[in-house]
Amino acid sequence: MISFLKRFLIGRPLKSTELGEQKLNKKKALAILSSDALSSVAYGPEQILIVLVTIGAAAFWYSIPIAIGVLVLLTALILSYRQIIFAYSHGGGAYVVSKENLGKYPGLIAGGSLLVDYILTVAVSISAGADAITSAFPSLHEHKVVIAIVFVILITILNLRGVTESASVLAYPVYLFVLALFILIGTGLYNILTGNVPAELHTSLGTPVAGISLFLLLRAFSSGSSALTGVEAISNAIPNFKSPEASNAAKTLIAMGALLAVMFSGIVVLAYYYGIAPRADVTVVSQIAEQTFGRNAMYFFIQGTTALILILAANTGYSAFPLLAVNLAKDKFIPRMFTMRGDRLGYSNGIIILGVLSMVLIYVFEGKTEQLIPLYAVGVFIPFTLSQTGMMVKWLREKPAGWMQKFIINTVGALISFIVTMMFFLTKFTQVWPVFVFLPILLLVFHRIHKHYEAVADQLRITTCEETIKIEGNVIIVPVAGITHVVMNSLEYAKSLNPQQIIAVYVPFEREEEAIFEEKWRKWQPDIRLVTLYTPYRSIVQPLTKFIDTINWKAAELNHRVTVIIPQFIPKKGWHNILHNQSSLLIRARLLFRSDVIVTTVPYHLKK
Amino acid sequence: MISFLKRFLIGRPLKSTELGEQKLNKKKALAILSSDALSSVAYGPEQILIVLVTIGAAAFWYSIPIAIGVLVLLTALILSYRQIIFAYSHGGGAYVVSKENLGKYPGLIAGGSLLVDYILTVAVSISAGADAITSAFPSLHEHKVVIAIVFVILITILNLRGVTESASVLAYPVYLFVLALFILIGTGLYNILTGNVPAELHTSLGTPVAGISLFLLLRAFSSGSSALTGVEAISNAIPNFKSPEASNAAKTLIAMGALLAVMFSGIVVLAYYYGIAPRADVTVVSQIAEQTFGRNAMYFFIQGTTALILILAANTGYSAFPLLAVNLAKDKFIPRMFTMRGDRLGYSNGIIILGVLSMVLIYVFEGKTEQLIPLYAVGVFIPFTLSQTGMMVKWLREKPAGWMQKFIINTVGALISFIVTMMFFLTKFTQVWPVFVFLPILLLVFHRIHKHYEAVADQLRITTCEETIKIEGNVIIVPVAGITHVVMNSLEYAKSLNPQQIIAVYVPFEREEEAIFEEKWRKWQPDIRLVTLYTPYRSIVQPLTKFIDTINWKAAELNHRVTVIIPQFIPKKGWHNILHNQSSLLIRARLLFRSDVIVTTVPYHLKK
Repeated sequence: MISFLKRFLIGRPLKSTELGEQKLNKKKALAILSSDALSSVAYGPEQILIVLVTIGAAAFWYSIPIAIGVLVLLTALILSYRQIIFAYSHGGGAYVVSKENLGKYPGLIAGGSLLVDYILTVAVSISAGADAITSAFPSLHEHKVVIAIVFVILITILNLRGVTESASVLAYPVYLFVLALFILIGTGLYNILTGNVPAELHTSLGTPVAGISLFLLLRAFSSGSSALTGVEAISNAIPNFKSPEASNAAKTLIAMGALLAVMFSGIVVLAYYYGIAPRADVTVVSQIAEQTFGRNAMYFFIQGTTALILILAANTGYSAFPLLAVNLAKDKFIPRMFTMRGDRLGYSNGIIILGVLSMVLIYVFEGKTEQLIPLYAVGVFIPFTLSQTGMMVKWLREKPAGWMQKFIINTVGALISFIVTMMFFLTKFTQVWPVFVFLPILLLVFHRIHKHYEAVADQLRITTCEETIKIEGNVIIVPVAGITHVVMNSLEYAKSLNPQQIIAVYVPFEREEEAIFEEKWRKWQPDIRLVTLYTPYRSIVQPLTKFIDTINWKAAELNHRVTVIIPQFIPKKGWHNILHNQSSLLIRARLLFRSDVIVTTVPYHLKK
Repeated sequence: MISFLKRFLIGRPLKSTELGEQKLNKKKALAILSSDALSSVAYGPEQILIVLVTIGAAAFWYSIPIAIGVLVLLTALILSYRQIIFAYSHGGGAYVVSKENLGKYPGLIAGGSLLVDYILTVAVSISAGADAITSAFPSLHEHKVVIAIVFVILITILNLRGVTESASVLAYPVYLFVLALFILIGTGLYNILTGNVPAELHTSLGTPVAGISLFLLLRAFSSGSSALTGVEAISNAIPNFKSPEASNAAKTLIAMGALLAVMFSGIVVLAYYYGIAPRADVTVVSQIAEQTFGRNAMYFFIQGTTALILILAANTGYSAFPLLAVNLAKDKFIPRMFTMRGDRLGYSNGIIILGVLSMVLIYVFEGKTEQLIPLYAVGVFIPFTLSQTGMMVKWLREKPAGWMQKFIINTVGALISFIVTMMFFLTKFTQVWPVFVFLPILLLVFHRIHKHYEAVADQLRITTCEETIKIEGNVIIVPVAGITHVVMNSLEYAKSLNPQQIIAVYVPFEREEEAIFEEKWRKWQPDIRLVTLYTPYRSIVQPLTKFIDTINWKAAELNHRVTVIIPQFIPKKGWHNILHNQSSLLIRARLLFRSDVIVTTVPYHLKK
């Protein structure tokens, strides 16, 4: 039943050799990996205006120089990540770059930040998408959390089906969104150039504004740079590309950067010319669209594709999180299960964990995850800074041909990223303080896991081990619950192993029972020694394990091993199990975890 | 940790021989077993008025004759159950009586109804108690479900601690409630007799009322008889009494009946004289108390003890449900686990199941379980009818001295109970229809479980079995994951058993890996045969079990048994388990449940 449902939702299992077929061409990769970055256009420009509006509408012209700053940062990031793609074509992004050039802990800080960040990506993007839908259809508002969670489940299933298939599904909305924004920006610019937009709507560039400060401008700049979240996704996902991986990934990165630059500048310019002020109930993009087209089909097309791409932006998290998890797991910092490919060759465990955690975030914040945006942005800029600093170190150390130019690019990127990160801490501390709590905890967990894996490897390694002591003989203990077929079956098996000794153990709860059973046993199995262990506490686990421990201790002296044979009858139908007491499971767990006796289960299958 | 918590909440384990000390004396038994019946006074009279008010206030005088009818029914029930206590002093109540005299299925109908009913008792009583509290403190209203669930948890813990201790806790509130109502009724009657209550408040007895019908009166009567739920509790719990059990139980029953009769009549009479009409927001008892005392300390004392006893009424369910479950489980109709006494000698499984199911009911109905009252009442009157019919049959069959009188008592009881049951079906079908759905399902489940237990007993019985075929030899299969200490340990054990054959099995996921491992193995363990099973599907369970099935099939021909030795390393700390994949568990489960190979687990304890 469960297995049928799994087949239906996820599809048939794929062979490992089918992996190549799952790889991405450039067009699909652009769709699957850039929805996060591109969707940021829907809220990035607005973040700038939200800061500037605290001074007044007169300050709006500052959005133009600030946008230029963001574009410079974007250019620096794109160029820097392009260099990373070629230098680290096996993928890994900020984690690998920081680890290899700066050391283990900077690497783990970058990796940990990103790991948490992808969960935030999913929660924030899906919630924002659900917001967009419920804004369009207010009657759905009270079901917002349910809608968001359904979307997370759908995207999780799509990703469990496999990368290529989800890419096919996701390609259209992303390209439709790009198309919609290009039409909007084109029409808007045409209107401005043909003089259809009244000049009094905006203050001209350079107008002096009272109360403006460098602090405020930097704050607006850092807010606006939240539009750049998601640009690192491609460098993490290089192994997902068709070969030549690095070259394809680099081209895709440039294409994404160009699209993002055009769309971001377009929205900022239109907002400035239209003199749009941020409003709580209507987004800036929506205001621009309404002023350009009115509330017609085109308006709804733009709003619809925006909502869709916000939901799909979550998919970037689904592509990047499992791959980063694999890198961390291979280095033994998180559980090994993240390295295993599922039936459809995706890293199922990473996909499922990401889905579950983001649903928890959505549920806990009741879908109001907007307040997580600064935390999300700072979680992106920490690894940006680290990876670019790492690249600086790399060029300085290796000094390849033309390294000076590369070094300068990364230095500029690192500096701007660092400033943005600092701006977040200085201007938005109340929202980003959890970084200082969760990052140390995460680092501690990474450390503990790593230590454990190293210790296990040490203990298992055959070369380092003392000589095994040969086992001289075996003692077999058979707990019996009565004189039945099941017990007989187990005794026959015990005899066939020819051990040094067989002991049957019976635990009576009443004194009278004890004598009666001993009598019966003597008649039935006179050759096998029976030990009875009376207990007044109605639990057989305690006296039995105590007895076994004693025997085991004596046997160890003779270099004998103790095997406990547990007769277990297996009912014909699963539900029958609740009708029988499961003390055999308890005994087995207790013995295996607390002592070193061997536990053998002899099944007795019921036929009806 | 869990075990510490358990000790703290439940107390130290008790010996079976300490059972006697846990038994109840009459005073405690009255408190523990009658809270359900006595608390019914809080809503029974009101139910009558709710029906009469549909005709008008003039019809209220009919509550007096109806109450007399209820008192007759109560007397019949008490006398009848007194006879049951002496006839069936080992306990069991309606289930045992119906089963022994009417046959298996009537017995199961009675048992099934009561089983469900005790769950309803807990849910309804606790919800009503929480209602009373939140009525007193309206600010708590939004937390009603949480409050109710906390109470269920507390009562569950009290009961897991053991019967006597919970009785000590519960005795005071019950007696305080009785005291409170006696003061109320006494003061009220004094006011009436001294002429302090104006006569115009009530219409005099016998006033003709337009629109009254026999149907309506019977409906009011059946509603009022919901005050009698709970009177069967004592007869189910006879084994809990100190000896002489039957005599003590009978005395307790009479005392309870007398208290119930006085309190019920008192409330009905006061309500009639005060001319009280049922209101949605204030209970009838509260109205009487307010009119008698005003809103002073005495009023809050009455309201407080009423709330408390409603919550404690749930405790009756906790005393009766596990004992009924034991009876059903001994007859093999429900899982055997209900017959086991816990650490504190209570039937823990029954207590826990009851707690969980009633919490589910409270959660699903959001604490508004009042609508379950008719269903609850009908679930009580079905077994009332069956058990008294059973007693009729018993007297007719056995004809002991003075049987005629006993027969008449039970016949009257059976007839009235039957009429009440029918009235519920006729007048409140929309609320009691679930009986017709759940009772058949429950009977089917009882039947299926019984059939299974019978089948198992048949198969296990040693006398009926064919001669066991002697095992001629053993084949041992060791799945190996690498060349490690854990594997070596398992191989040494396999060798010590001197089987006919040892086969090591390795499942590589890649072709290259296969050859490399075979080469290594040949150098390491040249004497042990290695089989490699390449798979492209990244799961070792499938190919491994297929291989084992094949070997098992061949071995069966030679009368050899196949043992699979699973090496398992046990980490030092519990949380380490999530860091390792649990395929050994999967393999074990698959092998045991689907084939008849023997599975041996060889533990390898990690030291760090």
